[in-house]
Amino acid sequence: VHAIGIDIGGTKVAGALVTEAGDILRLERRPTPAGDPAAIVDVVVELVRELGDGEQVVAAGVAAAGFIDAAQSTVYYAPNINWRSEPFRDRLSDRLPGLDITIDNDANAAGWAEYRFGAGRGTTDMTMLTIGTGVGGAIVTNGRLLRGGFGAAGEIGHLRVVPGGHPCGCGQKGCIEQYGSGRALMRFAGEIADAGGIGQSLARARAANDGVLDGAIVARLIEDDDPGARAALRELGDWLGQACASIAAVLDPQVFVFGGGVASAGDRLLDPVRESFLAHLPARGFHPEPGFLAAQLVNDAGVVGAADLARIHAGGPAESASADPVTAAE
Amino acid sequence: VHAIGIDIGGTKVAGALVTEAGDILRLERRPTPAGDPAAIVDVVVELVRELGDGEQVVAAGVAAAGFIDAAQSTVYYAPNINWRSEPFRDRLSDRLPGLDITIDNDANAAGWAEYRFGAGRGTTDMTMLTIGTGVGGAIVTNGRLLRGGFGAAGEIGHLRVVPGGHPCGCGQKGCIEQYGSGRALMRFAGEIADAGGIGQSLARARAANDGVLDGAIVARLIEDDDPGARAALRELGDWLGQACASIAAVLDPQVFVFGGGVASAGDRLLDPVRESFLAHLPARGFHPEPGFLAAQLVNDAGVVGAADLARIHAGGPAESASADPVTAAE
Repeated sequence: VHAIGIDIGGTKVAGALVTEAGDILRLERRPTPAGDPAAIVDVVVELVRELGDGEQVVAAGVAAAGFIDAAQSTVYYAPNINWRSEPFRDRLSDRLPGLDITIDNDANAAGWAEYRFGAGRGTTDMTMLTIGTGVGGAIVTNGRLLRGGFGAAGEIGHLRVVPGGHPCGCGQKGCIEQYGSGRALMRFAGEIADAGGIGQSLARARAANDGVLDGAIVARLIEDDDPGARAALRELGDWLGQACASIAAVLDPQVFVFGGGVASAGDRLLDPVRESFLAHLPARGFHPEPGFLAAQLVNDAGVVGAADLARIHAGGPAESASADPVTAAE
Repeated sequence: VHAIGIDIGGTKVAGALVTEAGDILRLERRPTPAGDPAAIVDVVVELVRELGDGEQVVAAGVAAAGFIDAAQSTVYYAPNINWRSEPFRDRLSDRLPGLDITIDNDANAAGWAEYRFGAGRGTTDMTMLTIGTGVGGAIVTNGRLLRGGFGAAGEIGHLRVVPGGHPCGCGQKGCIEQYGSGRALMRFAGEIADAGGIGQSLARARAANDGVLDGAIVARLIEDDDPGARAALRELGDWLGQACASIAAVLDPQVFVFGGGVASAGDRLLDPVRESFLAHLPARGFHPEPGFLAAQLVNDAGVVGAADLARIHAGGPAESASADPVTAAE
């Protein structure tokens, strides 16, 4: 039986018809009518109807950035949609009778897809960090998505790593998002460019781009093994490893999975993360250590995860079901 | 059907016969033969036989400080027993045939008791901090004890709050254990005594005790509302609130429960913790906020939790069962 996953992004709404094995049968995209809640409901309803047309569909899951309540029903706050305490599920259910509908945070949906069908497959406890403009997170414990008591768990980007550190969009200071994100990578690269020495290629590339370092420039220099760009990435990895050491003390995952644009640097990022993690791990040597892996479902993880979570909510295989029966969760 | 809980402490081994409702029917204590693993097995076997004599017992759970594997079978490391990778469950099962035996970390067992029968009752997501000499932790998510992928989850005392901060026994620096424990309270109190002013009572009490501030002295001054002792406790609460803000971003519990000797100060500790938490909470106002409660099962939580976890392992009511059916976990 298929399920539909919808992912409401800042610029586009993606929708997919997804099988129980996590395969996408049909994929559609629409521009996001940002800031217009009624139009967003229209787009989601339209996508669900189109994708389900002539198919046997059991459920539809919708993923969006922001805080969703633990009952997967109400949007407390969604920056892209400009919503506050919106009964999103009811609005959709009214127009899509007979379909089991759930709402989830977009990072949680993408992380769940990675757990079920990607790098986290076969584990019971996975922590995923998504390194994009910011730092997103998703946590699986005991084979289940950790939503938390109020639906706001997994906001790993707001773990504090420096008291009184860089101001963060969340209103606090020193969050790992300010030291481990793509934006932080640009800051580190700019500092290295300013310092001269190994930063000369970065400085030249910046000058040639009207004085601005952007993600594409730094990514290309990383791929070319430019010493300055690699040093900036190592600084990022060092901070992320420190955050993972604190997370391991609390969550003890079997595996940390890194997704998002910056994580496409692969081992160039993961090696310094792992090294820093081991240097900062409490009680190292007294218990087993987690693995560090790159995400496998780079595109469309959000729609796949949203569909799978919706199918589980509608009474499919238990949420703890692993895609690998041999190492299935207890 | 009853279960037996055993708690191996640094100085004594406690054992209890516990009902499904968490009531203790019989309680026994023996001195801990510290550093003598074979004698510890003897004491546990003896206690289980005595407590179970003439009773219908389904399972026995043993709690100990240290790292226990996720299968609740092997002790990776236990400081009180001087064990490394010891197959503790098998050693006990060989001598107690027919009984379902499990091993758990002592802080996890105590936290589980608090969740099932104490301050965490009726929630699905609880984080407990035990403020004693150190800072212990226990986490319940989705109505289940969070053991982690390798059994080492819930070591909240080793969340880092200050990069390069005070050295910690875990080998790292700046762990919350160095800023939020009973030992940290003594350090803060000593600094306030040194500074004069509101520290004069602390300084006098210290001089009268051969120059040493101990827990009993500081606790008495806190109870007497001495300004210096209260300031030390506020400093402790401020750090603990900062740690809870990071924990909330990751775990989003419905309730933080504070146990251990220092938490017996009640609201004198919880008020500054809550105040600091709200000042440091990421994205405050965009999602609901947790409660802060003092633990209710001050004594014998370890044996009650160990017995309950063992009963659940043996196939009693699901681990997610809440003691309050109205608000039971999903």
